Amino acid sequence: MKNHHQTNGKSFIHDDFLLESDFAAQLYHNFAAPLPIIDYHNHLSPADIATNKQFRSLTEVWLSGDHYKWRAMRANGVQEYYITGDASDWEKFEKWAETVPATIRNPLFHWTHLELKRYFQIDELLTKKSARLVFEQANEQLNSPTFSTVGLLQKMQVESLCTTDDPSDKLSSHKLIKENGSAVFPTFRPDQTILIQRDQFPAYIGALSEAADLEIYTFSDLLTALSRRMDYFEAHGCKVSDHGLERMYAAEFTVSEADQIFQKRLTSHAITPEEAELYQSAILFHLGLEYHRRGWIQQFHLGALRNNNSRLYQTLGADAGTDSIGDEKQAYQLSRFLDSLDKEDHLAKTILYNLNPADNEVFASMIGNFNDGSVPGKIQWGSAWWFLDQKDGMEKQLNTLSNLGLLARFVGMLTDSRSFLSFPRHEYFRRILCNLIGRDVTKGELPADLNLLGPFVQDICYFNAKHYFNFQNA
Amino acid sequence: MKNHHQTNGKSFIHDDFLLESDFAAQLYHNFAAPLPIIDYHNHLSPADIATNKQFRSLTEVWLSGDHYKWRAMRANGVQEYYITGDASDWEKFEKWAETVPATIRNPLFHWTHLELKRYFQIDELLTKKSARLVFEQANEQLNSPTFSTVGLLQKMQVESLCTTDDPSDKLSSHKLIKENGSAVFPTFRPDQTILIQRDQFPAYIGALSEAADLEIYTFSDLLTALSRRMDYFEAHGCKVSDHGLERMYAAEFTVSEADQIFQKRLTSHAITPEEAELYQSAILFHLGLEYHRRGWIQQFHLGALRNNNSRLYQTLGADAGTDSIGDEKQAYQLSRFLDSLDKEDHLAKTILYNLNPADNEVFASMIGNFNDGSVPGKIQWGSAWWFLDQKDGMEKQLNTLSNLGLLARFVGMLTDSRSFLSFPRHEYFRRILCNLIGRDVTKGELPADLNLLGPFVQDICYFNAKHYFNFQNA
Amino acid sequence: MKNHHQTNGKSFIHDDFLLESDFAAQLYHNFAAPLPIIDYHNHLSPADIATNKQFRSLTEVWLSGDHYKWRAMRANGVQEYYITGDASDWEKFEKWAETVPATIRNPLFHWTHLELKRYFQIDELLTKKSARLVFEQANEQLNSPTFSTVGLLQKMQVESLCTTDDPSDKLSSHKLIKENGSAVFPTFRPDQTILIQRDQFPAYIGALSEAADLEIYTFSDLLTALSRRMDYFEAHGCKVSDHGLERMYAAEFTVSEADQIFQKRLTSHAITPEEAELYQSAILFHLGLEYHRRGWIQQFHLGALRNNNSRLYQTLGADAGTDSIGDEKQAYQLSRFLDSLDKEDHLAKTILYNLNPADNEVFASMIGNFNDGSVPGKIQWGSAWWFLDQKDGMEKQLNTLSNLGLLARFVGMLTDSRSFLSFPRHEYFRRILCNLIGRDVTKGELPADLNLLGPFVQDICYFNAKHYFNFQNA
Repeated sequence: MKNHHQTNGKSFIHDDFLLESDFAAQLYHNFAAPLPIIDYHNHLSPADIATNKQFRSLTEVWLSGDHYKWRAMRANGVQEYYITGDASDWEKFEKWAETVPATIRNPLFHWTHLELKRYFQIDELLTKKSARLVFEQANEQLNSPTFSTVGLLQKMQVESLCTTDDPSDKLSSHKLIKENGSAVFPTFRPDQTILIQRDQFPAYIGALSEAADLEIYTFSDLLTALSRRMDYFEAHGCKVSDHGLERMYAAEFTVSEADQIFQKRLTSHAITPEEAELYQSAILFHLGLEYHRRGWIQQFHLGALRNNNSRLYQTLGADAGTDSIGDEKQAYQLSRFLDSLDKEDHLAKTILYNLNPADNEVFASMIGNFNDGSVPGKIQWGSAWWFLDQKDGMEKQLNTLSNLGLLARFVGMLTDSRSFLSFPRHEYFRRILCNLIGRDVTKGELPADLNLLGPFVQDICYFNAKHYFNFQNA
Repeated sequence: MKNHHQTNGKSFIHDDFLLESDFAAQLYHNFAAPLPIIDYHNHLSPADIATNKQFRSLTEVWLSGDHYKWRAMRANGVQEYYITGDASDWEKFEKWAETVPATIRNPLFHWTHLELKRYFQIDELLTKKSARLVFEQANEQLNSPTFSTVGLLQKMQVESLCTTDDPSDKLSSHKLIKENGSAVFPTFRPDQTILIQRDQFPAYIGALSEAADLEIYTFSDLLTALSRRMDYFEAHGCKVSDHGLERMYAAEFTVSEADQIFQKRLTSHAITPEEAELYQSAILFHLGLEYHRRGWIQQFHLGALRNNNSRLYQTLGADAGTDSIGDEKQAYQLSRFLDSLDKEDHLAKTILYNLNPADNEVFASMIGNFNDGSVPGKIQWGSAWWFLDQKDGMEKQLNTLSNLGLLARFVGMLTDSRSFLSFPRHEYFRRILCNLIGRDVTKGELPADLNLLGPFVQDICYFNAKHYFNFQNA
Repeated sequence: MKNHHQTNGKSFIHDDFLLESDFAAQLYHNFAAPLPIIDYHNHLSPADIATNKQFRSLTEVWLSGDHYKWRAMRANGVQEYYITGDASDWEKFEKWAETVPATIRNPLFHWTHLELKRYFQIDELLTKKSARLVFEQANEQLNSPTFSTVGLLQKMQVESLCTTDDPSDKLSSHKLIKENGSAVFPTFRPDQTILIQRDQFPAYIGALSEAADLEIYTFSDLLTALSRRMDYFEAHGCKVSDHGLERMYAAEFTVSEADQIFQKRLTSHAITPEEAELYQSAILFHLGLEYHRRGWIQQFHLGALRNNNSRLYQTLGADAGTDSIGDEKQAYQLSRFLDSLDKEDHLAKTILYNLNPADNEVFASMIGNFNDGSVPGKIQWGSAWWFLDQKDGMEKQLNTLSNLGLLARFVGMLTDSRSFLSFPRHEYFRRILCNLIGRDVTKGELPADLNLLGPFVQDICYFNAKHYFNFQNA
């Protein structure tokens, strides 16, 4: 055990942050750290990349849109005026700075100081007292051209990244980005086509119809429209889809039943929960077939219970920091969905993410049922997601994946973030991974062999994702 | 790492028990230990406090009523005669003493020796061999006036405490206690008003009617009666309610529907599960409104599966040590209940407790949805409860709360106990908390800054509860 | 802390493997290690024992039938031809050897090297490079008579073991084994009698009828037939039953209802889910009565979601490595089942196993409801099962059992394996147990008292099972 990770506040984020053994430090510094980043799922704004946006303040780049911080501020007794309201950038920042010491042991505490250090070389702990200094130092640097969106990505060695986009999106920003030669790709996220009971469903189908340049009257029209949009997305570099659902749908269906329900809903009739279940099963299955046909990778983010707070939903809309972890059953429908596609060898590469860690073992064991030997790690259990994206959550995901599957084949970390300052989360993941392996070595649970464990770590940090996604960079 | 926590059996409970680092020891001894205790939820007998009862033996104060110990004895092959039967105090104690070494790694092993040490200065491990000596030494001390109920509370610096009381209770003991100037408050626990399907429901409404001095025919009468009882409880210092439910109820309802179901049940008609769900949703909602109007704090203990063993239930009644952890779904109904009150800004301060640790993350994320900035930590996730009230369970609750919310705003520990010898559980909690923080510092995950972390720990051990409950002591 | 558990690859499995403290090492070497093995649940082939089979290669004894390894190979991108297909023993072994380094942190990595070391004295890490050497060294030894099935059991000090057998089985191998004087007993596993909705149910009842030499037309006939088979099993040393179910069934039933449903199903009519639930509840209850009457021990393995992959199920059948962890609710039905038998004091000694670790606390608390003081640890929560049979899973089971019940009364480890090379899993369990206890001592959570903790560990490793099962060895 090394003794130099104790800290006195001045150098809280030091070279060996989170690395508790020499072996871990060697793994991290010599193997993991130098590798570029493949960020295969996030919610960054393509427009901000396309325009190479500069940020007016640390508040804009860091607080606007970051519902993790909003939740923390609300829990700390900060009024909405200072969170999403009309307060000035400085006022909002000051309230955030006051909240930071209350985030001790929350990932926000580590993220905050890691981001201040990596982007701005700021070592100060952020508090009400240091707020003004930090605000000014960061704002000054944000004025520099190297702190544009593209600059921030380059600073972090981001080799390729995938945004998250609606099928009706025209991808105009992605067009511009592509012309600039950046390896930024859209992700096809058709949630609005799936969630048939939402009020806005018929209107959404209208928008999709327009984007696909096709009148959509029937389920078959819908599939055609989606296929056209996939062609379009593919032409803009897309090869990954994503879905955000409470759980999977895998009821038995016939296309004509799905068609009837779809048409009923389009004409604004109410449908029953059973009808919704059937339609949703049908559309998911057909999307799965298309993804497989195109060699895409499908992702499923399962288990969120969203928009719990009606008051904030009405004023702020979705993604306002009032989502939480659901406890719907996951295993059976997930099994039936995957099997329905695998049965006739139409199951695409798949990444499953769960939000409730009580489902960790369900997911970790499920992926093992549908590997067919065609490619290593064909079915993946995704990295600890959202509320679980912290040291404990990642360690649990890594440990459970290790115990029930092959960690060696894991495609690793992604930011899932809405902020351009979140890329040190890859560093955070890599340190945690190296520390875990180092701990095993210290305990004699793994051989102290860098030739074995160095490349093992590098695969998880970079090479597995590189081979699995095979993005065609410019 | 310090080396002096190894023990040889003689000084098992030593000064640095559970404190694995110097930083943890400093946090505990200099910050946490000196603070008084606010025990905001327990099941102590108000009559025993009002009469300043003395106990005839260690068996009476320690074993009678402690269903944790009963379960352990049954699992150890002890016959009921020696547990809840007619055996003498000494015979029962001897069987318990024989069981103690079999509780190694169970919290009972630590609690037992911590309580022997703190109340009686006994260092001996309790075994069949030491039983007679321990029994005699403790009994002798129990004769002293400082070992009366009030004396025991003073010994542990209990500043204020809340018992758990039925709305029909006359609170005569609380009246006496108040006259003596002790800070002991009743808690309003209306489970019997809520659980409409219980056999004794109609009879209970009769008792409530009498206590409220109001004939109860309708749902509206019921609400009036409950409101009168809340007035009465409030006059006796009550500002906290509590509920013990398998899960929350949040079906849609109208008052007239609830009224119809209530009247049907009162006339001893059977009601359907759907009707029960509706009634229970209606009464919970209206109770929530009242709590908010009065500025009370509402608590919900969710997820127990009670009275599993019919044989013991018939002979011993409830709370006989045959309850266990349930696995009903919690998230959706809980979200709907909280939102129904928050929607129009009628959500009281709320503390949620879960019994199944598989729900930890559901609860830890749920509380984050309904903080409105009015007060820090408005919605709380309560300390590890019942089966989870041990080192592992507390560490998991503390870690999950840290990761998903603000540990800094946590109102901390309560005993939930039926025994006057359980107050060292606050010490146990504080040691565990300080040790966790110390471990983070040792690993470099937190700055080694006592000025930052000392007050942080003190808030969780005492000041947060002091501000949150704001009990008006004599 | 000792420093000698670091390893350099040559002596990965050394004397103090997994033992992190001197106290742990003392507990293991002086107390746990010397004890014989009682393997009270596995899936070994009685025929292979009866014939004292020799194995033609390491592939045959190690890979054929081991679906844990199959899953790992599929996840590693190995084609089915090399897993369950027609490839040669060497080709299959080479693919497995290539997969081993990808199992780092999976129990397969430890099991593999522990088994190579204990049976064959091989210290080499298994990789593609070392594959040929390992294959040849092991195969050579497998030729020796001491590597027959009986030799392998003796090498590991297996004192008694229970195979898993269908009620219709003639037990001819067990007859032979008994004549040879080995302490190998059958286990009564009547799943096929319970799962009434399976296609093969009517045919199976035919087979049972033949084995029992009794025409089965009614539910009552069925009970008689099963009772005859239990007599037969008992005559062959059986005193343990086992069940593999997604969850328990405990609906209310009358025998005449169960009879009607059984007769309906026998005549190949479809039955409803409610009817299946009722029948299954009835048969489970009556089996429970019989087990109690005979003084047998009943085991329930709950929570697997089996045969998820239709393609592999069609070609390979069950137990092909496509099972996973389910998330059905367990608590309520389990409680009702146990109570229905306990109510009139007809509850046999019972061991409950859960597959989803999210249910750990449900199970650990459930067992505490039905101990009646007749025997220590009457109701047991079984050792970490299947996907959970690894260091983390075992530690969680041991910790949860400790926290919620009496670890001291635990009947401990079993292999549940289909391979004759799996017995070092007992050593693995014992090391993990001793290490846990040693860690508690190091932290001061337990007294450093070998006189207290040595026998404690020995009970869990051997003596509790010896007393609980009381197998009558030859």
